[in-house]
Parts: sequence; C-alpha cells; structure tokens
Amino acid sequence: MNKYYLMAPGPTPVPPAVLLAMAQPIIHHRTPEYEALFVEIRAGLKRLFQTAQDVIPFTASGTGSMEAAVVSTLSAGETVLVLCAAKFGERWEEICQAYGVRAIPLEAPFGETVPPERFAVALREHPEARAVLMQHSESSTGVLHDVEGIAAVTRTSGAILMVDAVSSLGIADLQMDAWGVDVVIAGSQKGLMLPPGLSFCALSDRAWERVKTSRLPKYYFDIAAEHRSLRKNEAHFTPAVSIMVGLREVLRMIEAEGLSRVFERHERLARATRAGVEALGLDLFATSRPSPALTAAVAPEGVDSEAVLSRYSTSHNITIAGGQGEMKGKVFRLGHMGYVGDFDVLTALGGLEQVLHELGYPVAFGAAVGAAQKVFAERG
Amino acid sequence: MNKYYLMAPGPTPVPPAVLLAMAQPIIHHRTPEYEALFVEIRAGLKRLFQTAQDVIPFTASGTGSMEAAVVSTLSAGETVLVLCAAKFGERWEEICQAYGVRAIPLEAPFGETVPPERFAVALREHPEARAVLMQHSESSTGVLHDVEGIAAVTRTSGAILMVDAVSSLGIADLQMDAWGVDVVIAGSQKGLMLPPGLSFCALSDRAWERVKTSRLPKYYFDIAAEHRSLRKNEAHFTPAVSIMVGLREVLRMIEAEGLSRVFERHERLARATRAGVEALGLDLFATSRPSPALTAAVAPEGVDSEAVLSRYSTSHNITIAGGQGEMKGKVFRLGHMGYVGDFDVLTALGGLEQVLHELGYPVAFGAAVGAAQKVFAERG
Repeated sequence: MNKYYLMAPGPTPVPPAVLLAMAQPIIHHRTPEYEALFVEIRAGLKRLFQTAQDVIPFTASGTGSMEAAVVSTLSAGETVLVLCAAKFGERWEEICQAYGVRAIPLEAPFGETVPPERFAVALREHPEARAVLMQHSESSTGVLHDVEGIAAVTRTSGAILMVDAVSSLGIADLQMDAWGVDVVIAGSQKGLMLPPGLSFCALSDRAWERVKTSRLPKYYFDIAAEHRSLRKNEAHFTPAVSIMVGLREVLRMIEAEGLSRVFERHERLARATRAGVEALGLDLFATSRPSPALTAAVAPEGVDSEAVLSRYSTSHNITIAGGQGEMKGKVFRLGHMGYVGDFDVLTALGGLEQVLHELGYPVAFGAAVGAAQKVFAERG
Repeated sequence: MNKYYLMAPGPTPVPPAVLLAMAQPIIHHRTPEYEALFVEIRAGLKRLFQTAQDVIPFTASGTGSMEAAVVSTLSAGETVLVLCAAKFGERWEEICQAYGVRAIPLEAPFGETVPPERFAVALREHPEARAVLMQHSESSTGVLHDVEGIAAVTRTSGAILMVDAVSSLGIADLQMDAWGVDVVIAGSQKGLMLPPGLSFCALSDRAWERVKTSRLPKYYFDIAAEHRSLRKNEAHFTPAVSIMVGLREVLRMIEAEGLSRVFERHERLARATRAGVEALGLDLFATSRPSPALTAAVAPEGVDSEAVLSRYSTSHNITIAGGQGEMKGKVFRLGHMGYVGDFDVLTALGGLEQVLHELGYPVAFGAAVGAAQKVFAERG
C-alpha cells in the first residue's frame, strides 16, 4: 500500500461524497431532473460569486472562460492594461495578442504585486484603456493581488476590471458586486473541489454593456449566446453533466460550512503552512500578500526545488508543484485549497521535513509540524 | 422504485465500470501516472480513428472541436462547401459565419442526404472552395451521410474534407486514412460512452499543411499549440482528468470487443429498432442511409411526437429525444449508441408500444418487440 496525496495548487482533491455523486448513472441535460439541478446551481453560484448577476458556465478549463471574457467584451485594436507578475498574467497577454487587442503590461517582479496606485497612474496615462485584466491569486508565485484596491480605481474609470479568480473563488473573499468587479472567472478544479472541465464567468452591468459592442469573432465562447440559453435554464452546447452533478454537491457543502468560515479556514491553513516553512529556515516566495490558496517556498541554498518535488513523489507518493518558467529549480509550491483540513497541512509539512532531510538539508524533525500546530491551537 | 433509462441520441449511458474508474481520487495531470495514461489513450485513439495521425483532445463539447478545426485550418474570406440537411450542418455554417468564412450550403431535404456527385459538380463550379464540411451521422434526422463517397471526390480536389463524427465514432465505420478524410471530430458522450466534456480532432497531412497558413484568431482552440504539447505528452491547458481516466477504460472495452464487432453490433441494434418501428406502421424519417447510431421515426397521423417523448418520460422514466426545429412535433428519436445491448432495444420498443397505446393509437402489443427479436435471432 502506498497512499496517494494530492497537494498541488490544483487540481485539488475531490471529496468522496462528490466523487460518488458523479459516479451515478448519467442523466440527460434536457430533462426536468437536470433543470432542477441547474436552477439550484445557478442560485448557488450567485451566492458563491457574491453577485446578483447570472454566472455563466462553460465546458472548458479556466483559460476557456478567460478567452470568453476577452472575445465577448473587447474589439480588435482596443487597449487593455494587464497586471503581469508571473505566468497567468502572461496568459491574459497571450489571449489579447491572439485577437489583436493591445495589452500594456504593468509589471512587478515575480513574488510581488502591483499596487492600485500604479493602475490609477496608468489609467490616467492611457485614457483609451478599455479594461484592466488581472489574477486574484497568482498560482505560480503564491501572491494574492489586491482586487478590492484595484476595483476602487477602475470603478470610476472608463475601464472594466476582469479578474481571473480561478484559484481564489471559494478560497479568498472576492465581493464582486460590493467591490465593483466587472468580470469574475473561476474554474472547477481549485476551491470548487471538482475535477477540471468546467469554468465560469460572471459579468457586471457595465461588462454586459460592453458585450453589446464587442466585435471580436466568437462562437463556442460567445457569452451572450450562452446567456440567452441560461435564461431559458438550458446550456447552449452539451454541458459537462457529471461535473455539474458534482457541483451541486459542492455548493451544498460550501453553503453548509458558510462562505466566511470557508475563507477563514483557508487563511488558517495558509498561516500554518507558512509558519511551518519558515520554522525550517526557508523563505516564502511571496514578499507580501501571500495567498490563502497555496504557499510558494524558496528551496534552501544548495537544494534544487525540482529535487524537492521529485522526492515528495518518489519517496512519499505526494504530488506538490515546482516553480514555473524562471522560478523552476528555485521554488516549490504546496496547495491548501478546497477539500483540505488541518491534518493535511501536517502531512505536507511532515513530508517536507523528511524530503529535506533526505536531500541532506539539516532538519529538526517536528519543527515545521509543531509550528503549524501552534497556529491551529490558537483557535481554542 | 422507478428505474431510469437513458435512450436519447446522446449523452448515452456510461458503463458502471467506467463510472467507478472516474470516481477514484483524482490524480494530477503532471505526474508519471497521468503520463502513462495519456500514452495509452493516444495510442488507443489512433486505432479508434483508424489513423496514423495524432488525435488531439480538447476539454470542450463537440462544437468546441468543430470550431478548433475551422479556426486552425481556414482564413477569413475563404470559401467552403457545407452539407446542409439539418441542424448540425447549420452549426458548421454558423461557425464559419462567426469567423468570416464564406459557407456555400449544399442542401438536401431533412431526412435525405447529398450524394457525392453533387459535391463533384459544386467543386468544379467553386474551384476556390478550400474545404468541404459535413456530418457523418446527422443526429437530428437519423441519416448517415456518405463520407467515403464524398472523400473520394475531395481527395483529388483542392478542398480538404472535415467530418463531424461526434455521433458516429465507435458506431459506424469511418476509415480516416484509408478513405482520405482530412479532419475527423468526435465527442466523449456518444459512441465513446463517457460523460460530455471532452472532444477530439485528428488531421491528415493535407490538413496540417493548412494549419501553417491559417490566419483566423485562436487561443484555446489552437490545434497547433495543443499538438506541440501533446508531442511532449502533455496537455496545453488543464485537461478534464476524470473523463480521461474514463476514456482509458472505454478504449480498453472497445479494443476487447473489436472495432469491427462494435460496428456490427450497432448496425444490428439499428436494424432491429427500425424493424420494430415499422412493425407498428410508423415511417422512418430517414428515407435512405439510416444511421446505426439512432432511429428517427415519424409520429403516426394525429399523434404529436412531443407527446410521445413526454409519455416515455412521465409514464416510464425513459428519456428519448424529440424533433428539432421544423421536425418538432413530427419526429421522435431513439438512440442505440454506445453501451447498448439487445434488451435495451426491447425496452425502447416495448416502451413505444405502451406509449402509443396510452396516446390512443391502436397497438398490437409485442409487434415491435417481436420484429426486433426476429432480427436478433438471425444471428444464430
């Protein structure tokens, strides 16, 4: 027996009850049963997105919904500002580039963020900017960008704010309507605790106005067409039925726990993980605003972070993630999002102690685990 | 207890062993375990598509892969011919329209097909045509179009042939390489017996040449980018991991049965269903080349086909499908694709007898069932 642990920053573990719900015989998507399911999901997604707007599902990974947001609200030749502080910021740029949208990057070193003030300045310099595109939690660096602060800037500007919340929805607080965020995008395989294959897009009134004038070509990712079907309680194209069945279960679980408690749990798991990593003398990669979704740690001097994740896998059958792009070899990432509890953090940190020891780095066994336990004990 | 039967022309029932395989704890897509799975799937898909080419998976419904084929091989302003004999032919037209590709429809009345000779004539009239777009099995009319015959025409022309085989792959013989088909598209939720959420696209050398010159904008559906990742045994974007796990099981099942036996089974199920329908005095909607995937029947004089499917559902908890567009109220459709055996056909036909009786149409109980059994008995 060699028990498997999935501790990467997505895909994340799916709760057994959800796996079993999805293993039921498949139902047809044009039946009263599916309609009832869709009604419940539509209402639950609105609460989860903290919005009164409809949330549009797409059968696609999160990138598909990012593309849907771009092609449904923008036109060729238009200008947008993009928060670029790692891999997923670059994805926004690539999508814009593919469709002839001019993307001006607002850059920060990897591991840092771009403060709202810089967006205020950039929007004054570029009054033609039609949108600001950003991530909420940047999975490649472990930074949580300041959506609330940047929304306060865009709200009174001519630019709409599009937020990739693929790895923050159901993890970090994101008050779409209250903060004035115009587009929120999420995926199934992170905080939503589902297999990958579904993603979502919600639009503010301001963003829906843009949909009317957008001239980029689109078919599968046409948000307006999908929205017309949704209002008839249908999917425009065959939906990923089994993942939708799982989604109903997940939404019920989140409602039962309560959204604010879900956010607190993730914050606590993250604090404990950071305390554990630092107790071993390792640096966090995020210099400020560390994300509650994952912890990116810098491998200690002389240790290749690729060796850390390889050891996690080969010695302990635990999947974590390494660094991407220029962070490869330097950074490793521990996910603590979705179906994760206190003792999963102890497993991840206990694993880290053993892995570092195996790689010849001096470790006081129990140091990281103990530091996390102290954080957990604060609760009582 | 009210047992549920899914007998629509897609989504189709998922075998219990496949449901349970997909219910296992989710694995990460960047692990040796997933790599081994992907290697097996890639080889199995080639055999299923009867091609030496790579088969590219997309996390999207079948329509997504249709769009991928268009945006990756064509350019704005180019001309294509489209076989239009019902709803899914119109989908090809809509995709072309969305991207500024000029689609010339070659039409046939619903329930009929367009013979290869008409394509030969049209290609002489339109030497500028860059592609011919068609369905193999048209799910809305129950007609199997003549891919082999049309490929014989396109093979020596300047036009590539793109075939939507979403509801024929693993059901009707489609020899991609031997017949000279340039693009074959399939989905997970028909002959592949999986939940919806995955689709596939395979390209001939001729089609790959077109990819080099295509200038339509694309990102998520960029076949060339996805292919570069596939050659490294990776997915370009997070794949629908759980459905891929199911796909491995399904490919093993199909290999064990043998592809030619799979085709024979569907042909037999279709012949039995047609015999049953006709034994009740009903007409088939397909006037020639009826599809082995489904049977579209014309509701008898005075009976609304919407009432037929509604009765199937409310009285017997069986989902079948009705007519789409102008066929609504006139046609009902029985699927017999994928995880379907002889006694499923008896259930569908027994249900039909009871439904028609309930609707006041005179029925000799056992007539349809008996006619199907005669077809099954021929085997021995």
